[in-house]
Amino acid sequence: MTTTRQQMTADVVAGNGLLHRRALLRRGLAFAGALGTGAGFSTGAAAEPLTEPDWSVVPGDAMPPYQVPSPFEKSVVRLIDNPNSQPVISHARTPHHLLNGIITPNGLHFNVNHGGVPAIDPSQHKLLIHGMVKRPLVFTAETLLRYPMVSRINFLECGGNSASLFSNEPVQATVQQVHGFASCSDWAGVPLAVLLEEAGVDPKATWFVADGADAPHLSRSVPLSKAFDDAIVALYQNGERLMPGNGYPMRLFLPGWEGNMNTKYLRRIKVTDGPALTYHEAHTYTDPLPDGKSFQFYFIQEVKSFIANPSPGLGPKAPGYVEISGVAFSGTGRIARVMVSADGGTSWGEAALQEPTLPKAFTRFRTPWHWNGGPAVLQSRAWDEAGNAQPTRAEFIALRGQTKSPAKWPEFPSHHFNAVASWAVDPNGEVRNVYA
Amino acid sequence: MTTTRQQMTADVVAGNGLLHRRALLRRGLAFAGALGTGAGFSTGAAAEPLTEPDWSVVPGDAMPPYQVPSPFEKSVVRLIDNPNSQPVISHARTPHHLLNGIITPNGLHFNVNHGGVPAIDPSQHKLLIHGMVKRPLVFTAETLLRYPMVSRINFLECGGNSASLFSNEPVQATVQQVHGFASCSDWAGVPLAVLLEEAGVDPKATWFVADGADAPHLSRSVPLSKAFDDAIVALYQNGERLMPGNGYPMRLFLPGWEGNMNTKYLRRIKVTDGPALTYHEAHTYTDPLPDGKSFQFYFIQEVKSFIANPSPGLGPKAPGYVEISGVAFSGTGRIARVMVSADGGTSWGEAALQEPTLPKAFTRFRTPWHWNGGPAVLQSRAWDEAGNAQPTRAEFIALRGQTKSPAKWPEFPSHHFNAVASWAVDPNGEVRNVYA
Repeated sequence: MTTTRQQMTADVVAGNGLLHRRALLRRGLAFAGALGTGAGFSTGAAAEPLTEPDWSVVPGDAMPPYQVPSPFEKSVVRLIDNPNSQPVISHARTPHHLLNGIITPNGLHFNVNHGGVPAIDPSQHKLLIHGMVKRPLVFTAETLLRYPMVSRINFLECGGNSASLFSNEPVQATVQQVHGFASCSDWAGVPLAVLLEEAGVDPKATWFVADGADAPHLSRSVPLSKAFDDAIVALYQNGERLMPGNGYPMRLFLPGWEGNMNTKYLRRIKVTDGPALTYHEAHTYTDPLPDGKSFQFYFIQEVKSFIANPSPGLGPKAPGYVEISGVAFSGTGRIARVMVSADGGTSWGEAALQEPTLPKAFTRFRTPWHWNGGPAVLQSRAWDEAGNAQPTRAEFIALRGQTKSPAKWPEFPSHHFNAVASWAVDPNGEVRNVYA
Repeated sequence: MTTTRQQMTADVVAGNGLLHRRALLRRGLAFAGALGTGAGFSTGAAAEPLTEPDWSVVPGDAMPPYQVPSPFEKSVVRLIDNPNSQPVISHARTPHHLLNGIITPNGLHFNVNHGGVPAIDPSQHKLLIHGMVKRPLVFTAETLLRYPMVSRINFLECGGNSASLFSNEPVQATVQQVHGFASCSDWAGVPLAVLLEEAGVDPKATWFVADGADAPHLSRSVPLSKAFDDAIVALYQNGERLMPGNGYPMRLFLPGWEGNMNTKYLRRIKVTDGPALTYHEAHTYTDPLPDGKSFQFYFIQEVKSFIANPSPGLGPKAPGYVEISGVAFSGTGRIARVMVSADGGTSWGEAALQEPTLPKAFTRFRTPWHWNGGPAVLQSRAWDEAGNAQPTRAEFIALRGQTKSPAKWPEFPSHHFNAVASWAVDPNGEVRNVYA
């Protein structure tokens, strides 16, 4: 392995063994994963690797009409905090540490629901567009399916994602617990602009208010300009109709904007000349500031990244090659750059960005690392194409404040946390949330 | 609606009501989908559209750890032809007519399995790389997870997709039955080149042979150049680990190449200096030609498109606006252009291509159409960035031949059908497969 270590050393670009991203393409490296088959191995022999377990000799099972993951992947599930559906908010978090690529499979997309998951009969569900329009209109899912469609790969992030990092002491939690309220799908639906133009919007209108059909009737105000930019009434998620937890049969989708504004179970759009100051926008999703003022509205989920692997519970098993991998995204547009540090921000190396880098979508980043078995602090920091940089935690809390540990929702501030996060790796390969 | 009709007429670009793609963005058009709410409608009144069904007043259900579609979408499933898992080949086809966007959800990805779906324990599964290498190596899924990863959105198509269109008479079948052996996912895994370079490939080697671990031990030969181009050992599909029907725990993935070569349940890669002429490549997946010769190998799934909507069972309900929508793809690279005809190929209009248009991936195309209620024949034709054109059926069968109706698998020819397909719409809005 001397050769490998020399090769790795030649590629070091930052402190504590961080390698140049070209090492990802390096050929002939030993990654310490493979087992040699031994000197006596002969290709003609009935070598031990080619055993014949049951599945190699017996026909397999029937194909199900709708396939689901292997029973051996039963731990790859969303983290559920209200399994008995008590009448409080319930959450399902995406297990980022167990995923790869940029698409979140529908089974594992996050949910935040204020009144459980409604079982809506699409033939009984209607969407009303009214208010400051010439011609109020009503749509069913079936009628919307006859309209022009668009589709886009976009992330969706709850404003409350990563809220535990507001705590003044680092909370010990997994990447799923901390960052699990962000997912990325191929969303398809009807441009809201097409529906509003058909209704005929009053030139004096400036906002619209979107209501959900589920019991909480969640209601949020949205500037009308977003409707004429890229808002859609979404009907499909990764090809198939929306999941029940993600708004079936229809939802508002506002690319890059705070999850809660993307009204699920959409039943009403009222065109107005001002925000409605609804309960959720005047209380729950308002962001207070240290000076006693607050951001009344905060639409964009700003540039952000996090490392999914290594992460707590998924530390490196042995010194040597480790691929640091995570996702970056920005509500403003494309990710332009992600830098990674293995020494708590003292020095940085540029991560490889997996193509395609799509606007307002997850971008998978990867950085090769030679872990020497000593302590390390891993960080990632993203920039978007508009030049916005993910803030350091110090910069961020100076502006936004922090909470006392243990943080308790809805203790404020608790929304739009997008600062650099840090995972400490100890010599045993255990990973912990730290502030660095 | 006179205004709408005039607007639509102004946009006609080809025969039988085919509109310019800009009509997809046209604002103020009435698409005949919405219902006005009536002259007496007042925004303040308890208007009929805002009823309060059960789901609007009662808390919803608990969130499941792994979510699945609504029970109201129970017809959105794969078409299964061997539900009792008889010991013959079994197929599961993607329901393209009910999908949108470019990602196929994992539940609905197609499967073709020669021995059912094996239930493989990943901790017991091994991949052996041997043959003309310096150092034979063995990998488990767990060791592969420590290697550098790449991910890409790519289509996968069975060589036998659309085989029923070889028939000399048009077989009456749905788009799912005809074209359901093509799907598109975000695939992630380890570049095969990285593993082969670690093993040390003999400079005289030119091919490799990949075997599956399931009972049929399907075995296919692949030119070594593909390994050093873009082949991966795939571990993830749309973010999560592979579906059992798609090769769990690992499969060979050869972007753009014939589905059957993308060996599922991959257990062995033997590096060789020639093809192995295995049963499946010397028999089942060989393409005979009318002159008695045959293509021994035919790797690339060539440029192709099909219309998913309208399609049999999913015809237009009333004259007026109809969105023609489908997917195009090419094993050579990006889709550059899709043309659509509503008059059986006499005249053509350019379809809108949904961004992003990714290499070797589905591209969703859409064309607005004003159906006048009369007979129509819909066709789509795609070109890729290398300039390859999807052939007409006449051009295609002159080269490849056709079969006698009813076609019976494995009657030959039955692979790599990529010609233009035609759906006839009759005045009742019923859609049939025709040759035009």
